[in-house]
Order: sequence, then C-alpha cells, then structure tokens
Amino acid sequence: MPRVRIEPLRSYTIEVFAKLGVSRENAEITADVLLASDRRNIASHGVARLKRYVDGIRKGIMDPKAEPEIVKETPTTLTVDGHAGLGQVVSVKTMRSVIEKAKEMGMAAAVIRNSNHYGIAGYCAMMALRHDLIGFSTTNSAPLVVPTFAKNALLGTNPIAIAVPAGSERPFVLDMATSTVPRGKLEIYDRLSKEIPPTWATDEAGHSTTDPGKVLKNLLDRTGGGLAPLGGAGEEGRGYKGYDLAAVVEILSGGLSLASMGSEVYGRKDEPPDVCHFLAALNPAAFGELDGFKQRMDSFIGMLKNVPRQEGAERIWIAGEKEWIAEERNKDEVDIDEPTMDKLRKIAEEFDLSFPF
Amino acid sequence: MPRVRIEPLRSYTIEVFAKLGVSRENAEITADVLLASDRRNIASHGVARLKRYVDGIRKGIMDPKAEPEIVKETPTTLTVDGHAGLGQVVSVKTMRSVIEKAKEMGMAAAVIRNSNHYGIAGYCAMMALRHDLIGFSTTNSAPLVVPTFAKNALLGTNPIAIAVPAGSERPFVLDMATSTVPRGKLEIYDRLSKEIPPTWATDEAGHSTTDPGKVLKNLLDRTGGGLAPLGGAGEEGRGYKGYDLAAVVEILSGGLSLASMGSEVYGRKDEPPDVCHFLAALNPAAFGELDGFKQRMDSFIGMLKNVPRQEGAERIWIAGEKEWIAEERNKDEVDIDEPTMDKLRKIAEEFDLSFPF
Repeated sequence: MPRVRIEPLRSYTIEVFAKLGVSRENAEITADVLLASDRRNIASHGVARLKRYVDGIRKGIMDPKAEPEIVKETPTTLTVDGHAGLGQVVSVKTMRSVIEKAKEMGMAAAVIRNSNHYGIAGYCAMMALRHDLIGFSTTNSAPLVVPTFAKNALLGTNPIAIAVPAGSERPFVLDMATSTVPRGKLEIYDRLSKEIPPTWATDEAGHSTTDPGKVLKNLLDRTGGGLAPLGGAGEEGRGYKGYDLAAVVEILSGGLSLASMGSEVYGRKDEPPDVCHFLAALNPAAFGELDGFKQRMDSFIGMLKNVPRQEGAERIWIAGEKEWIAEERNKDEVDIDEPTMDKLRKIAEEFDLSFPF
Repeated sequence: MPRVRIEPLRSYTIEVFAKLGVSRENAEITADVLLASDRRNIASHGVARLKRYVDGIRKGIMDPKAEPEIVKETPTTLTVDGHAGLGQVVSVKTMRSVIEKAKEMGMAAAVIRNSNHYGIAGYCAMMALRHDLIGFSTTNSAPLVVPTFAKNALLGTNPIAIAVPAGSERPFVLDMATSTVPRGKLEIYDRLSKEIPPTWATDEAGHSTTDPGKVLKNLLDRTGGGLAPLGGAGEEGRGYKGYDLAAVVEILSGGLSLASMGSEVYGRKDEPPDVCHFLAALNPAAFGELDGFKQRMDSFIGMLKNVPRQEGAERIWIAGEKEWIAEERNKDEVDIDEPTMDKLRKIAEEFDLSFPF
C-alpha cells in the first residue's frame, strides 16, 4: 500500500476545504481529525472520506461557513447548535470548552445538535488526554442498526469513545460502534465474496444472514434488515444490550439536545441531517489525585497484559493499543490505499490543486 | 411459585439485619434494595441473597456497624470510603448526595471504595428518576470474566445501569452485565443439564465451550476459563467490546477511587473485599428543558415500539420495560421460589424470628 507523507497530505486536504469555502482554521481542524484517523489505521474514517465531504458541501448537506453557536451554558454544561456545519469543527471547538470547564468544575458535558458526521468518535475523547482528563464522546448517526426483534434498521452504529490517561503506559482508548460491526466491514466481505458470521447482520425478514451483499442492498433499498447490535440478533448472544447501548447514545446526543433521534437524524428529505453529539470530560484529580490515578491505570493495564493467555494468542490487547502502535509507526507517513489515492487525485484535478504523491 | 406479601417480608428482612447489628435505618435501606430486585423479577439479586449477607457479616467480610465516610468532596464530586459496610447502605446514601449536587450543578459523580456487593446496579441509577435526573451506576465485582484471548478470568461481570426519565412512557432503565450472561445463568443451565451457547463462556484452555458445569467447576477451582464478555470469546462477535466496557467499569469505580481493580477486588486473603462503585447523575434541564426532554423520550420510545417487527416477534422491548411490568404486577406481593423460602425459614429459626409465610 502506498505510504504518503502526512504534511503535504494535510496541506492538500486543507486546500480542498478552503476551495469549498471553509475558513483556514476550520479546514485545519477537519483535516487534523481525518488524518488522526489514518494515523491510527482507521482508514474508513480518514481522507478516504474526503469525497463525501466535498459532495456534502456541494449538495448543501454541510454548510462550509457555519460556525457553532452556544445556545445554553452553565458552569458544567454547554448546548451547541452546529448550524449544519462540519461535524469536526463544532465538536472539536466544543470539546475545548468542555475541557476548560472540567478542569475547573471536576466534570463537564456538552450536547450538540444540527451537526454532521464528526469523524472518529475517539478524536474528541482523546483531546482530554493532554489535559489529564478522562474524555467521553458519542454521536448518533444514520439508521443502519436493527433493534432486537425488529425487521428494520432504526438506530445508528452510534459509537462510544472513552479515553483515559495512564502513567508510563499508553492511554486507554475505547472507540467502538455499538453494533457488532460497522457497515464498512460488510462491504469488505462483499468485495471478497466471503460469508459474514451470523452475529453481524439480519436480512429483510429480521433473521440472521451470512450474505453481506444482500444486507447492503437491503439497506440501500430500505427493504428491511441491517446491522445487528453488539451481541448479535435475537436474545441468545444478548444483542439487546448492544441495542440498549445504541439507544443510550441517542438519548445523550439527540435527546438531551432536544433534537433528532433514531430515524429522524437523516429523516428530513432534501435537507441537512440533524446529527447530534454528546461530549464530556471528567477530572480524575477531583476524586483523588492524579499521580495515584495514573499509577492505578498502569497497574491495571499491566495486570491485563500479564493474565495467562489462551494457546496461540500473541498478546492481550488493551483498548486503543493497536491504534497507538499504528500512530507511532505513522508519525510522518500514512498508508493510503490505491482506490483512495485515485479519488484524491481526481479531487485535486477538479480543484486545480497540486497532488505531489 | 409462592406469592409472598412484601410488607411482612420487608419487616422480616429488616429484623434479620437488626439481629446482626445493623442499625434500623441501614437495615431498611438494604431490605428495600433487595425487595426492589424481587419486585422487578430479578430473583438472583433479591432476598434469595439474604443468606450471603448473613454469612458475610458473620465472617467479617461485611461490617454491620460501618458508616460511609466522605474522604473528599467538591461541588460536583464525592469520594467515599465504605469501611467494609453493606454495599447498599453506602451506595444509597451516597447517591442521595449525588442527586442533590446534580440538581444544583447540572451533574455530579461519586466514587466509593471499600464496599461490598451493592445489589442491583439499577437501584441507585433509578433513584435519580423521581428527581427528573438521569442516573448512572456501576460497580466492579468478583473476577469471573475472561479478557479476549486470555485463559483466566480477571474482570467482574461489572454491570452498567443507566436510568432515564420519560413523560407518559415508563422510564428507560438499562441494567446490564458487561459479560454476555451472569454466572447464575450457567447455574440454571447446569441444573437442567442443558448446553450453553458458545458465546457465553470459555473453558480452561480459553476456548468457547457449551458445558456450563465445567465452567462453573473451573471458576471454583480457579483452573482457568470463565464467562465471556458481551460479544463472546475471540474476535468474531467483537467480544473485545464487552471486555473493554468491563475495563471502563474498573477504571471508573476502582481506578478513580484509587482502590482495587480486576483481580484485586477480592484479592486480599481472609480480609473484606474492596468492591468499588461509581455513581453519577445528569440533569436534562441543564442542557435544554425538562418537559421537552421528556417529550423527546416519549417520542423515541414510541418510535422503537412501532418499528416493523420480525415475523413471530410479539413486541419490541424497551430497556427496563419487562422489569416495570413485573414491578406493577408485584406491587404488594412477589414471587419467591421454594428453595429460597426454605433458606429464609431456616434463617428465621436461627434468629428466633417469626416467619408468617
């Protein structure tokens, strides 16, 4: 896979957003969130999505000039209207305020409405780390997930991200969809003509299926079926827990901001979606003291790493560890696959930008 | 199954705790938490556990006279030492303070260390409901859950409870173990000589197993294996998400309170355990306004209930709905199975208490 230098790729990405009318500051924020994803080997949420943002702005789904507006504020809370701007811009700017509030008040939270896709949920959560805070970030999203016993998708893959600072160990970073797998995983299996495990998705009748192509087509045609919640369809694997967690995400993001939930999020025809986020930060020092907490984190991570492994297992992974290893490897360069390179090249041509890769 | 009147059963339970040296006030709190569980048809955490509390106090694992001590306090946070008292007492008393703080500050949280089993996680979360707050409650517990790729159990079933008020609909109450199933479910299958699904547990080599008896024996002998995290063992069903959620619970409860995590919780030989809880409350009114939020909850619950169902499915359930239906049925009486009745009768004889059932 081509290795691409980050600095010129970042400049290129910023230029694309600038051409679309996004301010320099906001273009930088958005490029940084996209590239953080590529650095962490989460290619699905990196610059591979640039085309979607270009199209989103052109179609009027995203307003390139929108600035977040604080509509309500208390010492611990913020309610923000994204005015259909870029999700990265409103979430990153809001998270900065949440962090300041949490440093002072012990904890703080914000809800954001009228936003768009904000990239990896982990980005805002991880912003808390350099301030020695625990960060929390979650968002609702397009309806792809089928509630337990339902036939149709109603909930988003609604990710939950929690970032926790440690001492000498790498920070603990959970960033998980509340579905078993995201849609992109089905697309990969479909391209390879591979069957999917029965815990991943359901067909138009609501039953488990191993055919990824059918699920993707059904989702497109809205004929029923979709992704299964974490735990799988039905009750055997306790998939209702994944369904309930996805519902909690809707409540915290869309509910608290008095905005869209479930099928409403992308439910307004020919109008921008109403994606909602919930961001929070918690100060460990408010409960005890910071160094002691970091020592506890190191000790716990060590305990997990040293638990006896099942035969053939290489290691016990800690949440976010694979992504930190990737990020360390991808300090100056990232992997970008050929189809993505082609797409980026086409955008460059269209905007008359140099693409020196 | 025998139907037992709640009021005399509550008096009896209070009397038992009083005989063991627990104050009237604290005995009432503990009895109320146990009976709330029976009323919600969560028999595993109801008065069926009374014998364990009796034994726990007698063995010195629980101190009947302990009172919670606040060791650190800010306007939004509390750090509490349970001094090895009853988990219900310290958690309920602390949640009262969390609620008061959250009403004033928009949100608040507490960590508790040196506690014992606190009953259903949902109890403290649900305390927030009558104050129109969102309640959050979680706890670490005895190591029964095997991290992904590990051979041995290290994490508790670490439940997460989140209670959310609604308007005309019943409140949304998630109360879930982060393992696929709790140990009690394996005991039931073992008694019935039934195989368990492969997503529920692993054997001493770390592989999925369908033999519940083997898992239970292995856990007792500490020879390896145990419960699988939500999503199952291995990576196929994304069991690492359940493992990561269980780790988050350890971090919030044991980590923030600078106390025990994972195998440490019950790790001190011949000494009380160091169970840790995390409690929080969030005021929806701080983000928007209460009536609007409740309307959003009603609308979302209605949306979920009305999604087309798969063939043969009776209804789409909302988190906590089955338990609310049980609670409404069990207003004055609860189901107590015969083996539990026998155990309660024996305790009554031992303490020379009347047992009019």
